[in-house]
Amino acid sequence: MTGKFISFEGPDGAGKTSVLAAIVERLSSYYGDDLLLTREPGGRDNVVAEAIRDLVLSPDYPEMDPRTEALLYAASRREHIQKTIKPALVAGKLVISDRYVDSSIAYQGAGREIGFEAVLQVNQFAIEDFWPDKTIYLDIRPEVGLARINQYRTDEINRLDMDPLSFHQRVSAGYHRLAKMAPDRIVVIDAEQPLEQVIEDVWQVLSQELKVED
Amino acid sequence: MTGKFISFEGPDGAGKTSVLAAIVERLSSYYGDDLLLTREPGGRDNVVAEAIRDLVLSPDYPEMDPRTEALLYAASRREHIQKTIKPALVAGKLVISDRYVDSSIAYQGAGREIGFEAVLQVNQFAIEDFWPDKTIYLDIRPEVGLARINQYRTDEINRLDMDPLSFHQRVSAGYHRLAKMAPDRIVVIDAEQPLEQVIEDVWQVLSQELKVED
Repeated sequence: MTGKFISFEGPDGAGKTSVLAAIVERLSSYYGDDLLLTREPGGRDNVVAEAIRDLVLSPDYPEMDPRTEALLYAASRREHIQKTIKPALVAGKLVISDRYVDSSIAYQGAGREIGFEAVLQVNQFAIEDFWPDKTIYLDIRPEVGLARINQYRTDEINRLDMDPLSFHQRVSAGYHRLAKMAPDRIVVIDAEQPLEQVIEDVWQVLSQELKVED
Repeated sequence: MTGKFISFEGPDGAGKTSVLAAIVERLSSYYGDDLLLTREPGGRDNVVAEAIRDLVLSPDYPEMDPRTEALLYAASRREHIQKTIKPALVAGKLVISDRYVDSSIAYQGAGREIGFEAVLQVNQFAIEDFWPDKTIYLDIRPEVGLARINQYRTDEINRLDMDPLSFHQRVSAGYHRLAKMAPDRIVVIDAEQPLEQVIEDVWQVLSQELKVED
């Protein structure tokens, strides 16, 4: 595979959507059609992964067991890798995914308390050691992230919005454990800085990784 | 939990549906409403498990990756256990499931060649060592089973019907490995006998296990 695979991670309220949009716009001038922006759960144009996404995020099933949820995320990810990410990399593209396997380990493993190792293991079945070349982790204290979310909250809710601060604290701890485990892959960015500075920090990392001139 | 949990397993063409119907009818006179007949993938009245079943068996997705399939079966099983099987056992019921975890290990692990151990491990995440009290395995040589299926084939097909003999041979080998691993749980019944004798053999095992008088 000749392309590069970058994932973006972060807790709720870290500004991931805004940062991603700015970075993708900047990279587009270098990559054009050779940049594929995708996301998890689901995946751009991936019908099976998106069907599983619809199921796991559906408000119709508020009582879904956490292990069921983790298995569905892993199933969706498997399709995403096989049918979307790997073919794009083989074609030499730059693939940027809004969330990937770290989200499952942080949210389901740590947040939902299934266990960091157990969720990592189930995901190893799905990913078979296929990790991103680089992962941008937008770090923000849970209480700061939640305050941001509440400030801009719209009426659109899904089940994830119903969780207490303690859940988000466990998610954050899960991400920090991952960052320590994989310091070469995961780059921690201080997302409590002003948005423009966060974007600049991410750009420094990615322009170096991708060898694009500024 | 005070109830009993029995699973029925077997390759295609083993006569599982006919045997189950006869056994359930006979047990009904002892158990009445305290007998719950369910099935996998999916599970009676279990909306999440059934929604996952619909997805994994849909002819819309003929190219689904085998590991995705295995993760979806495990997800569906988890809901089945948590929302259907365990509550019934707590209520003291006899639960009989048409297929359970052995099917995944035999079909996905051995048949689809993902690996016996890998699929067992993923399912351990889903079942957390929750095994049936007794598993009836209807044993039939793959070529005999397939000949039976072709004889009675209807127009209704799903993706599983498209597999060659070699696939069914691997499934059969997977079941035999399981039977050797768990000789106290899995009872192997010769399903090449006449149907009435198969039913009688199964009845002998279950009437003893359940302590019902003949």
